[in-house]
Amino acid sequence: MTDEPIKGGRTGSTRRGFLRQTAAAGAGLVAGAAAARADGPDPLITEVQGWASSFGDPVDAAPYGLPIHFEDHVVRRNVEWLTESPVSSINFTPIHALEGTITPQGCAFERHHSGAIELSKSEYRLMINGLVETPLVFTYADLERFPRHVLTAFCECAANGGMEWGGAQLEGCQFTQGMIHNMEYTGVMLRDLLNEAGIKPEGKWVYAEGADASSNGRSMPLEKALDDVMVAFYANGEALRKEHGYPVRLVVPGFEGNMWVKWLRRIAVYDQAVESREETSKYTDLMPDGRARKWTWVMDAKSVITAPSPQAPIRHGAGPLVITGLAWSGLGKVVRVDVSTDGGNTWHEARLSGDVKPKALTRFHYDMTWDGQEMFIMSRCIDETGYVQPTKQALRDIRGLNNVYHNNGIQVWWVRADGEVENVEIA
Amino acid sequence: MTDEPIKGGRTGSTRRGFLRQTAAAGAGLVAGAAAARADGPDPLITEVQGWASSFGDPVDAAPYGLPIHFEDHVVRRNVEWLTESPVSSINFTPIHALEGTITPQGCAFERHHSGAIELSKSEYRLMINGLVETPLVFTYADLERFPRHVLTAFCECAANGGMEWGGAQLEGCQFTQGMIHNMEYTGVMLRDLLNEAGIKPEGKWVYAEGADASSNGRSMPLEKALDDVMVAFYANGEALRKEHGYPVRLVVPGFEGNMWVKWLRRIAVYDQAVESREETSKYTDLMPDGRARKWTWVMDAKSVITAPSPQAPIRHGAGPLVITGLAWSGLGKVVRVDVSTDGGNTWHEARLSGDVKPKALTRFHYDMTWDGQEMFIMSRCIDETGYVQPTKQALRDIRGLNNVYHNNGIQVWWVRADGEVENVEIA
Repeated sequence: MTDEPIKGGRTGSTRRGFLRQTAAAGAGLVAGAAAARADGPDPLITEVQGWASSFGDPVDAAPYGLPIHFEDHVVRRNVEWLTESPVSSINFTPIHALEGTITPQGCAFERHHSGAIELSKSEYRLMINGLVETPLVFTYADLERFPRHVLTAFCECAANGGMEWGGAQLEGCQFTQGMIHNMEYTGVMLRDLLNEAGIKPEGKWVYAEGADASSNGRSMPLEKALDDVMVAFYANGEALRKEHGYPVRLVVPGFEGNMWVKWLRRIAVYDQAVESREETSKYTDLMPDGRARKWTWVMDAKSVITAPSPQAPIRHGAGPLVITGLAWSGLGKVVRVDVSTDGGNTWHEARLSGDVKPKALTRFHYDMTWDGQEMFIMSRCIDETGYVQPTKQALRDIRGLNNVYHNNGIQVWWVRADGEVENVEIA
Repeated sequence: MTDEPIKGGRTGSTRRGFLRQTAAAGAGLVAGAAAARADGPDPLITEVQGWASSFGDPVDAAPYGLPIHFEDHVVRRNVEWLTESPVSSINFTPIHALEGTITPQGCAFERHHSGAIELSKSEYRLMINGLVETPLVFTYADLERFPRHVLTAFCECAANGGMEWGGAQLEGCQFTQGMIHNMEYTGVMLRDLLNEAGIKPEGKWVYAEGADASSNGRSMPLEKALDDVMVAFYANGEALRKEHGYPVRLVVPGFEGNMWVKWLRRIAVYDQAVESREETSKYTDLMPDGRARKWTWVMDAKSVITAPSPQAPIRHGAGPLVITGLAWSGLGKVVRVDVSTDGGNTWHEARLSGDVKPKALTRFHYDMTWDGQEMFIMSRCIDETGYVQPTKQALRDIRGLNNVYHNNGIQVWWVRADGEVENVEIA
């Protein structure tokens, strides 16, 4: 084999025999990756298959398509015992089976307080009132006439991982970290609507509520409202899905999901916070000293290995292994993700793949050679402020054991020699 | 109204009365945008609606969701008379109704030569052969073990706009520019697979073919194959759709869509191009001198106003108007988009919204005040090489009238005073 350079930038010879190099540890990869199998030619190669000798679906088969049935397992799931009611509840994004950074809207998690409502664009109304000079009511058609912007942001429920405060409980990252999605939104900036109404100088807070029965009112400082908050109507290129707030929702980059009010009905400017149910009784955390942590708007930096994970075991045995995962921070960009495969003794920097955007999901990959022995794997991210994702124990040491929300602790997976994976905590 | 600065960066007072400023030209916007309508309170505001007083859908209603029925018009469409067969044909992305840059996979266009086949991951095989040191066959499981990468790229059929060579024909940008989509792909780089097999020094070309009956074989220079070509398995975060090549397709950033072989079956290294049907009989253009233009791999810079457009007329009358559109270039990034609303006499720079990525769709917006009179609107993009999108006539002057492919000419829309829009060409 010559070493003559090939134009176009062949990657170095270290890439040669990627699968073969690990044959000693592998499970017959060379045999599998050869043109002829040990027991003869592969009929899938040598015999003309049905799909190669007949027509497939025509171009009018699916005006709006769904995933192929082989992918039926890539769906939202819910945990019935989590909540008393199926309308004030949550389901989870199947992050163990996804890649990249964009979450398909069809399986992007939902969190409702009184179910997902049906509201048409023609019946939609958005009120702007309170401490404004001219109270206004916008129709959907009115909103379409304001300058549009595009941004990509993760939406994470503050309760993501909440069940894990008491220890490793749920078997799969869909359930331990799946209250999250990442979409590209198009809409108008809230500041443009507020400025249309005119903000009175005594205005200091903005209150947002939705058209559903729960209304889900939340307060935020005027400064945030005038910053990067969007009144969005498109997600991943098309209209919002019904379950994500069609036709209009609030997008509050970096802030907890509950504030991303769906079926947005009203924006009010006030001189103080409303202190609604959702920001007093809920979305606050009881601390060891008896006081509650409140106004915990920003989602702290977090990461998780999405595969291997309990729902995504290793089926190929020892040899080359791809570790893939997600990292994000409500404070801005993720600058680094480290992966440990020895229970946190040593850490190795992972690759950040694709776009690294502030307040949006970032994909990381770590390529390794697995020796086929059990291992404890985990990831840890660092964001642009220098904040380092903490361990669950470090969080408990500060927050105590009565918190519900904002569990951004490091997730440990126990990979067994047979490739199965379990959710565990280690000292 | 005070001019005291509001912390958080209120946009300037020019934004005040955005809708009111145009009341003179408007159609009663102030009345519409007021808390009380001229004929009394708005019952959609003052009366409790059904959706606000009952439960919506529970969280287990849609494990994998579809768009709300109000959006039933946002679908792929095909034009039956375009082709003799519905399996060797095309449908079109409803770009007139989309926003942002990501194309929802459910309505992303399809182009097949023998229909969309059903091929499972377990039955999938990828051969690497020809001028390689070790011919290989990969299963899907093998491919999952190679280092993964993420990239976003537009896929445009070379025939996009082909029907317009003879003049303005189809009524809507879905049909005139809709053979295009933009997705975030995750997969392995082709160079890593080629280097696994080992490229012989005499290898100069790569040939890719698919598992469908048409096989759709295409040749590309080895240099491109070793550059940014990806063997992709995920699109917009989930597995490829059946109609987009599940489980594996080729992604060839910047190159014409036909080369993005679906249901990828074989990659061969050769010392010359194969000159298959798809690169001789098809995907070549007859020039005035009788020779054919060939190897026109790169999609030239193009842009189009997606709304207003024939399928997206202006319904709100004079006043603030949002012009929205897409721009892209197979050579790299779009650096600028200009919009004209006076038939090309004067041009104004549009805003580029969201991400500007090389060889990917870029969204532009242009905000204007419409006087309610007819106008001829168009967009023109410039890419990072300095290439300026040409007029259709400039293209015809060079290419003649017998080209089928690579029509990247400027699209003109005639907006009438009643808001309806037509596809036209102007001198």
